[in-house]
Amino acid sequence: MRIIRTIKEMQNTSKFMMRQGKSIGFVPTMGFLHEGHISLVQEARQQNDCVIMSIFVNPLQFGPNEDFDRYPRDLKRDEELAIQSGVDILFYPHVDEMYPKERTTKLSVKERVDTLCGRSRPGHFDGVATVVLKLLQIVLPDRAYFGMKDAQQVAVIQGLIDDFNVPVELVPCPIVREQDGLAKSSRNVYLTPTERKEAIELSSGLNAAAKAIADGEKESITIKTIIKNYLDQTSGVIDYIEVLSYPELQPVNLIENQVIVAVAVQFSAARLIDNTIATSDIAIGV
Amino acid sequence: MRIIRTIKEMQNTSKFMMRQGKSIGFVPTMGFLHEGHISLVQEARQQNDCVIMSIFVNPLQFGPNEDFDRYPRDLKRDEELAIQSGVDILFYPHVDEMYPKERTTKLSVKERVDTLCGRSRPGHFDGVATVVLKLLQIVLPDRAYFGMKDAQQVAVIQGLIDDFNVPVELVPCPIVREQDGLAKSSRNVYLTPTERKEAIELSSGLNAAAKAIADGEKESITIKTIIKNYLDQTSGVIDYIEVLSYPELQPVNLIENQVIVAVAVQFSAARLIDNTIATSDIAIGV
Repeated sequence: MRIIRTIKEMQNTSKFMMRQGKSIGFVPTMGFLHEGHISLVQEARQQNDCVIMSIFVNPLQFGPNEDFDRYPRDLKRDEELAIQSGVDILFYPHVDEMYPKERTTKLSVKERVDTLCGRSRPGHFDGVATVVLKLLQIVLPDRAYFGMKDAQQVAVIQGLIDDFNVPVELVPCPIVREQDGLAKSSRNVYLTPTERKEAIELSSGLNAAAKAIADGEKESITIKTIIKNYLDQTSGVIDYIEVLSYPELQPVNLIENQVIVAVAVQFSAARLIDNTIATSDIAIGV
Repeated sequence: MRIIRTIKEMQNTSKFMMRQGKSIGFVPTMGFLHEGHISLVQEARQQNDCVIMSIFVNPLQFGPNEDFDRYPRDLKRDEELAIQSGVDILFYPHVDEMYPKERTTKLSVKERVDTLCGRSRPGHFDGVATVVLKLLQIVLPDRAYFGMKDAQQVAVIQGLIDDFNVPVELVPCPIVREQDGLAKSSRNVYLTPTERKEAIELSSGLNAAAKAIADGEKESITIKTIIKNYLDQTSGVIDYIEVLSYPELQPVNLIENQVIVAVAVQFSAARLIDNTIATSDIAIGV
């Protein structure tokens, strides 16, 4: 695996590969890799000649009270995992390489942000969109891989790609789960043993919701009630249960097209999120 | 010359040429071509295997009281001129192709805009930056050609390219002038015969300023006075005489690096602009 630290070398390398007719799959990360990232690499590995991963903890997407300085970093371990999972090139730029001087422009995300987790993180997706647009210009991939665990991020980046006609295919990848259905997260270790058992209610509730929608249920309020009955079995506090159009992320009362059903639950020391995309079969083709 | 009207076909065509190792030179225009545009095509022709011109009157860069609907259009004449000057591909998208739905993001230009002509056109450069970033993603050029007549536009687009690491070289091209030095402009026809003679004072003043700077003059105020003495010979009203750092477009009192000296003069029915880039030789290497 080759490690590249400058933008110039990364762009030149990607252009060289393009001219050779090689397809490039890109997995952007902030490092501290876990099974979610590895699943993205595996998907990219299957679909492309070359897999490029970036590791860059992007200061622009952290709020003033968030944990940019304390964000966990472990490059040696990440390198090992990247090599094992089949990454060809690791792009690992310094902050000064990515943001060398005062910018003259500002990219803001206006839609799809004032809901779900974005509601409590003003400006977060502006920083995400800015760094992703830069990375897409630097890595020049044919396909870019993002996990559906952060479905809102996927929706925002799809909007960005559409707005600016970026010549890349966004590939949303399924949430990686534990055997009992709990979405994998580095935060799961903060759950008490009791909470860990209760936490399966998130995915159970979402599964029940998806099944109800597939069976023809169209009322969002009914779907939310189904999920609430599961989440009420836990000791956690429900932060939100939402049924939104996807990828627009607008509230829907009547489910007629593709929706995201998303939940967030605060346990004693961990806030868990999970979601599923569902489509009302009957509505397809309408 | 091939005419392409869809984004998909334009991107696929450019990707195909890239894979063949062919370089692409790009001349974005709003059509109604004149000698300024042709000079850009000639420059692009010399430096690239393939020359692509776009014609797109971008509604986003027109203010509510500006002349988007009345902006002159003459595709047949433009096609002829494009063919004669050596354009290989004309990209000519419909507004609905470029802006098919509500955008989810907003790109704003924060620096280099609140001066020169940008001062009186709030939001104009947001629209310019948005469409240029889209066109660069669609045409995927190695080099993009812009005329220095609109030096502020060049500075803004260079900032955009730097901010987002767009893999393109911006090539600023010299102002095309009449034999007596007047910068060519479609607005020159609105000058009265007397004003037409007076109008050479703009380029004469700028030439004198550039010579003074090359000879070691460092005081912006002195440079402005030199130019004012020329412009005062005309019946026009001086809109601005500016000495700014380039490409940052910050006011400078003491000329130590590269500057732009720019003027705007309002005549009875035409507002003329002109500029020159000057460097204090003595300061070079400091």
